[in-house]
Amino acid sequence: MRAEILAVGTELLMGQIANTNAQYLSQRLAEIGVGVYHHTVVGDNFDRAKQALQTAIDRGANVVILTGGLGPTEDDLTREVVASFVGRSLNLSNEIVEYIRSFYTYRGLEMPENNTKQAMVIDGAEVLHNPRGTAPGMYLEQHGVHFFLLPGPPTEMRPMYEEQVQTILKRLQGTNELVFASRFLRLFGIGESTMELKIRDIIQQQTNPTVAPYASEGEVKIRLTASASTEAEAQALIAPLERSIRERVGEFIYGIDEESLEVKVGQLLQELGQTFSTAESCTGGLIGKMITDLPGSSDYYLGSVVSYHNSVKQSVLGVEAEVLQTHGAVSAECAVQMAEGVRKLTGTDWAVSVTGIAGPGGGSEEKPVGLVYLAVAGPNGSTVQQHQWKHGDRNQIRLRAAKTALYSLIQRLQNER
Amino acid sequence: MRAEILAVGTELLMGQIANTNAQYLSQRLAEIGVGVYHHTVVGDNFDRAKQALQTAIDRGANVVILTGGLGPTEDDLTREVVASFVGRSLNLSNEIVEYIRSFYTYRGLEMPENNTKQAMVIDGAEVLHNPRGTAPGMYLEQHGVHFFLLPGPPTEMRPMYEEQVQTILKRLQGTNELVFASRFLRLFGIGESTMELKIRDIIQQQTNPTVAPYASEGEVKIRLTASASTEAEAQALIAPLERSIRERVGEFIYGIDEESLEVKVGQLLQELGQTFSTAESCTGGLIGKMITDLPGSSDYYLGSVVSYHNSVKQSVLGVEAEVLQTHGAVSAECAVQMAEGVRKLTGTDWAVSVTGIAGPGGGSEEKPVGLVYLAVAGPNGSTVQQHQWKHGDRNQIRLRAAKTALYSLIQRLQNER
Repeated sequence: MRAEILAVGTELLMGQIANTNAQYLSQRLAEIGVGVYHHTVVGDNFDRAKQALQTAIDRGANVVILTGGLGPTEDDLTREVVASFVGRSLNLSNEIVEYIRSFYTYRGLEMPENNTKQAMVIDGAEVLHNPRGTAPGMYLEQHGVHFFLLPGPPTEMRPMYEEQVQTILKRLQGTNELVFASRFLRLFGIGESTMELKIRDIIQQQTNPTVAPYASEGEVKIRLTASASTEAEAQALIAPLERSIRERVGEFIYGIDEESLEVKVGQLLQELGQTFSTAESCTGGLIGKMITDLPGSSDYYLGSVVSYHNSVKQSVLGVEAEVLQTHGAVSAECAVQMAEGVRKLTGTDWAVSVTGIAGPGGGSEEKPVGLVYLAVAGPNGSTVQQHQWKHGDRNQIRLRAAKTALYSLIQRLQNER
Repeated sequence: MRAEILAVGTELLMGQIANTNAQYLSQRLAEIGVGVYHHTVVGDNFDRAKQALQTAIDRGANVVILTGGLGPTEDDLTREVVASFVGRSLNLSNEIVEYIRSFYTYRGLEMPENNTKQAMVIDGAEVLHNPRGTAPGMYLEQHGVHFFLLPGPPTEMRPMYEEQVQTILKRLQGTNELVFASRFLRLFGIGESTMELKIRDIIQQQTNPTVAPYASEGEVKIRLTASASTEAEAQALIAPLERSIRERVGEFIYGIDEESLEVKVGQLLQELGQTFSTAESCTGGLIGKMITDLPGSSDYYLGSVVSYHNSVKQSVLGVEAEVLQTHGAVSAECAVQMAEGVRKLTGTDWAVSVTGIAGPGGGSEEKPVGLVYLAVAGPNGSTVQQHQWKHGDRNQIRLRAAKTALYSLIQRLQNER
């Protein structure tokens, strides 16, 4: 099957919201092997929305998933557009009127009259119930094209997809369709183009599985996707390819799939039954934020000192005045004392520190913007790294520093376990 | 002018990333009065990408902004697609090769040979320089249609738009076009629907300026946009409307335009010549991260203690064991001692603390997920607030807690100055 996701809503074209529905549906459709070939966004305009449907069909879509435009207001016209496109009538469903009325009654409210608009159903369409809102969805088929009309709010659209649309799509796929399996390899410490050079012949030779590289702020991912008639067969196609790639760039692979740097740190520490803390200067709390984004991180992450000002480095972390005078706050010596200081203060097994110049101000010839020191203090002593990132803005430098600090900790944990 | 934003990238169709570039560009184009009629996403496929260009033109676009597909790898083919579409050749620019080489040399690296792909320029195109990456952008015109080729990474695309593309678009608009002026009013402590009820008649009556509310995690913004033949005229249309809105909801307005909570905290502290620090538990460093996102925040933000574990609350912040035993870590008493502890430790004028249950685990009947205590310690003593957020996930609760903490500090600073 060949799908197009068509979002209807002027608020998307004005940039008021991002089209996260398209992202969500793309992920879900990929999981069940439905190919998504286009996303389109069109405004709340009858003619343009109808034209967008024609374009989707002209370019070969046989599954069109529309999101948005099912609400009660004047500019919600997805129902009308689809009805007109397939040349069918819209009929008022008393059952849905009663459902919407009960939805309001339950909340102690009276149903606004414009809400009956939401009870209009395209002739022959299957109604998709919406227990989380007033706008029901719809599914209909015409000339081999399957139309799904879903509400715009993600909190209503997502469960409707999971509970109803996916079942219909799987039924349509029947048993002859292919199953897709994907695996992400996560790399750190290698650039995207260097990585690609190392595995270029693999990328060029492969058709199934396919191999695709992705890069973001120091991290590189390689996606392997295979299709076969069963999940096990698809996985079996991925395995030898993964081995070949690991032979070439294995030293940079730190995790797979959802194993981000934060997740990996947590896994390793939990395995070891150990804890860590952080001392952050230029990252200002970013590492702590990343670590505590994960529920359960309190098992191994005890806390942090953000020593944004030198006085805090001295008074809280115990960095020596002499170190600050002689070497400055952005120095290997200071980074080590910060890490050792927070380790002692919090009583953790490990500690990581970052001190640097994130810019845009504060740089000098001797210590330019992008100069960052990272230290890891552990049961067997401290290590320190110097980095000089020559491009990137404040946010990029901070994010790279935070990720590199976590990667340094992963390397120490892996070496010393 | 009539624009279509065309993103090229299979990763978008797979749902690996959201098309935030389309959102960003839509916002910027709306500001200068360029109408965006469609967004399209197409994969890294030559024929389909070329067909998408034809579709854009068929449906009336005379500005087509392409994002993505300018990288060095095999599947980056936006340059080739556009060159083929307009029937022009691609020529190697030695100047760009040298720029890319210097980009690598400067970083102490050798340029991978596949990078020269990025130095291919469409005949007659204007090169848009990219100081933040290796892929330059391009601008060309053919038969009255203006094509912009921009890199996919937002960190490269956004500055290229702001510094180069916007200038070209404004020039194309000429002098007969309307000028748009916008102003955002920033509110805290009021919900979107309550706010909308209070100014509903204003929203309904206005056509120029337009009034649009936006909400995100506790914050509400009202955007006023006016069009006129000059900037001054447009601003003059906004002024009386802003006054009317301030009469209705002025008590909730804490800033305008780019004055976020972080910015406002900084402004007030710098005005007073005072400093602050933070003690974070459930927010795990998020407040520090938000504050230090701003360059220059070291003038007033000295540091933070992230006391994710109770041992750190006691040993570093001096929270009494009895408080933790009697009231628990998530309590008004603990919040106050955390704020007072970090204030003393860092020697700041002010301190803010947060302790709560961000979920999804860790809640109980007595202390459910979403229960958060915030304290502000200052020269005239401490204040504490209890919040119970009944909906939202871990990230939303953390973000709301961080923002509310900053808002509490703003209120104290405004009352006591």
